[in-house]
Amino acid sequence: MAFTLTKEFLEELKFLVESRDTGRLQEFLAELHPTDLAEIIDQLNREQAAYILTSLNEEISAEVVTFLDEETREKFMELLSAKEIAEVIDNLDSDDAADIISELPEEKQREVLSEIEDYEQAKDIADLLNYDEESAGGLMAKELVKVNLNSSLIQCVREIRKQAEEIDDLFAVYVVDDRDVLLGLLPIKNLLLAPSHAKLDDIIVKDELVSVNVSEKGEKVAEIMRKYDLVVLPVVDGLGRLMGRITIDDVVDVMQEEAEKDYQLASGISEDVDSDDKIWILSRARLPWMIIGLLGGIVGSRVIALYESELQIHPEMAYFMTLIAAMGGNAGVQSSAIVVQGLAGGAIAGNLLRRLTKEFSVALIGGFVCAAILLGYSLIFTDSFSLSITVAISLISVIVLASILGTFIPLMLDRFKIDPALATGPFITTSNDIIGLFVYFSIGRLLYGVF
Amino acid sequence: MAFTLTKEFLEELKFLVESRDTGRLQEFLAELHPTDLAEIIDQLNREQAAYILTSLNEEISAEVVTFLDEETREKFMELLSAKEIAEVIDNLDSDDAADIISELPEEKQREVLSEIEDYEQAKDIADLLNYDEESAGGLMAKELVKVNLNSSLIQCVREIRKQAEEIDDLFAVYVVDDRDVLLGLLPIKNLLLAPSHAKLDDIIVKDELVSVNVSEKGEKVAEIMRKYDLVVLPVVDGLGRLMGRITIDDVVDVMQEEAEKDYQLASGISEDVDSDDKIWILSRARLPWMIIGLLGGIVGSRVIALYESELQIHPEMAYFMTLIAAMGGNAGVQSSAIVVQGLAGGAIAGNLLRRLTKEFSVALIGGFVCAAILLGYSLIFTDSFSLSITVAISLISVIVLASILGTFIPLMLDRFKIDPALATGPFITTSNDIIGLFVYFSIGRLLYGVF
Repeated sequence: MAFTLTKEFLEELKFLVESRDTGRLQEFLAELHPTDLAEIIDQLNREQAAYILTSLNEEISAEVVTFLDEETREKFMELLSAKEIAEVIDNLDSDDAADIISELPEEKQREVLSEIEDYEQAKDIADLLNYDEESAGGLMAKELVKVNLNSSLIQCVREIRKQAEEIDDLFAVYVVDDRDVLLGLLPIKNLLLAPSHAKLDDIIVKDELVSVNVSEKGEKVAEIMRKYDLVVLPVVDGLGRLMGRITIDDVVDVMQEEAEKDYQLASGISEDVDSDDKIWILSRARLPWMIIGLLGGIVGSRVIALYESELQIHPEMAYFMTLIAAMGGNAGVQSSAIVVQGLAGGAIAGNLLRRLTKEFSVALIGGFVCAAILLGYSLIFTDSFSLSITVAISLISVIVLASILGTFIPLMLDRFKIDPALATGPFITTSNDIIGLFVYFSIGRLLYGVF
Repeated sequence: MAFTLTKEFLEELKFLVESRDTGRLQEFLAELHPTDLAEIIDQLNREQAAYILTSLNEEISAEVVTFLDEETREKFMELLSAKEIAEVIDNLDSDDAADIISELPEEKQREVLSEIEDYEQAKDIADLLNYDEESAGGLMAKELVKVNLNSSLIQCVREIRKQAEEIDDLFAVYVVDDRDVLLGLLPIKNLLLAPSHAKLDDIIVKDELVSVNVSEKGEKVAEIMRKYDLVVLPVVDGLGRLMGRITIDDVVDVMQEEAEKDYQLASGISEDVDSDDKIWILSRARLPWMIIGLLGGIVGSRVIALYESELQIHPEMAYFMTLIAAMGGNAGVQSSAIVVQGLAGGAIAGNLLRRLTKEFSVALIGGFVCAAILLGYSLIFTDSFSLSITVAISLISVIVLASILGTFIPLMLDRFKIDPALATGPFITTSNDIIGLFVYFSIGRLLYGVF
């Protein structure tokens, strides 16, 4: 069952750590999953964390290390020599090992690599360190089970048994030719169900086999695995040779980060922060968009100053300034959010003109409904017909303009390979504030007194 | 390799469909994955879709149906009799089958269930239809491979072979007692590596086994599978009896929907829409928050009207109204986004007072930096010292107030079991607009002329 960390549990644990009672500590933690152990250790200070990690069985301890917060892990690694780190690494899959090593300073990376006893493992890790962290190569593990197409089923089973010892989970067996080119996939189910005289070629999957190139982007990998409902995805090089495999658990993390990034951009947070981060990290993540918003606000204040004469003649125009600006912001954010999500899901089809026409229609409907409500309110509760008409027409114009910009800008950014999510949130809100004020006062100057 | 749908491909396909050339059509589509076929068929009209689906091999056609857009599938199902639907369903896993049947009108659901030839399958589906779609029971499939703890390894392998025919992917074998209570998990790897005389009890995983109750919420299931890096998760009832299994591909969809929902709420969109949806659906999703924003704006206009006398004496106060309101909105959205993400990740620990104190500090830093910039600008470019001081002090107050509210409101909503994401986006922006205006004018009334 899933474990929930309680205050009492943490206090008892701290007591056991302080009293250096390794035997009882091991017993206390015996039934916990490495993920849960990591969650607990994240709550402790460096010395307590190190004491627990060294008390645990070596293999479990190594796995726990992969689940720790980056911050906790960094602190723990600082306490260890290159040799000790190498011992931890030796117990890990190549992808987790490479992830951990890549967090070390470069000098220490080389030291650790040279201390790893298993040369194959060291080579695999060194290979993986060459790939961009965000690419298929950076996500894959080197450990996999593969057999040659020409093997008999008996050889094949023998081979699988030998290779399976090295990996955690056996999801599939890959079938390659003499040059290591990926030809197909042998599902475990087919292996179990095949009669012993079956030929390998008859029980493997070839047509539906999906693979990715080692340089493919992480986002694309996630999209493919989601689309094809894959649990594991083989990675090949330019010649089609099998380089590694990506498992879904690593991709789930990529997907989560993607989603969080979009959400944070929409909310005006410029780096990946957590509510438990330190005050200055949180401030650093928030200040950039705050300052952009501020500069936008200052430009807005210049626009208002520009129309000071209007405000002096018709001071009641000031009542609806904030409303018009805010509604432009709201409509723009809605439009851009729909485009950004469409782009992320790969679902933006059709040409630009059709999309803008559609957006124009949706905005027009929204604009008319809002303008009607506002006009009704304003006719009843304010005594200026001119003001009511000006506000209503401005509202429609601003909503339409903001929606079209909100659609257009992310599409353009995407065409120029810039993350379209940048265009959502404070950026759209702020620019639409300014545009909204312009439109409002221009329409005011034109219409006021005409009605 | 992953398939990309091109215009040319679609045109050739339509041509083949129009010419009713089944042989060449089958050849043309032969190497495509069911997911890709579904993507293609989603682009066609009802008659074209039905023609292709009936031309395909029965098993593939059934799988394609599960990947179709709900809308396309609905249209296709309308063309079929209950008997024909039952034939499609017969080829599917129980969870996919239940999902499809649940989309039919109730009358037709019963008809289809009675037409399913395999009684076991019909029973499984009927069982699954009883669970809430958003629960573990609604996500699970009934198909799984289980063996009794008392079996010998040979019996076990025989049993697995028999049961494996029914399922698509074999990830794990569950071990149960005579009452079907889940005791452990036999990883395929252990099965392959075990010597033939091994006892089942010695090669199964017991301690680290994670399972969920059938009534657990889908979000919680996703959280557990992500946390423990699981590919498949067993589902048990109140007595610990094995009811089914949930595979990661279904949970990835839940995670995606969760993330999209939060993003849409933050962007002021009230239902799950797609950029390709019809104009009135898009309008319906956008209008609620637009109207809430509008009402907020109207309240804001009343606040401004309340302080009309201030504006008449100091008309230059109008310059910074929009800026103050917008900055309050920005800061509030940032704070609530961090809390909402923390709550979603289960990472909000510590007491409320500490969190609010921290938020207060972060807001104070942001407020001071922004106020300093604004003060500098205002001292240089405007000639009223009183205005500059009023605006700077208002800005700090509004940012701090908005941040604290942005933290407090989602935490409160969460405590009352309301989705905290509701508090982000337009709601926070709008209420902070109003609060910002109040603060600005109150401070203006107090300070103006003092300096």
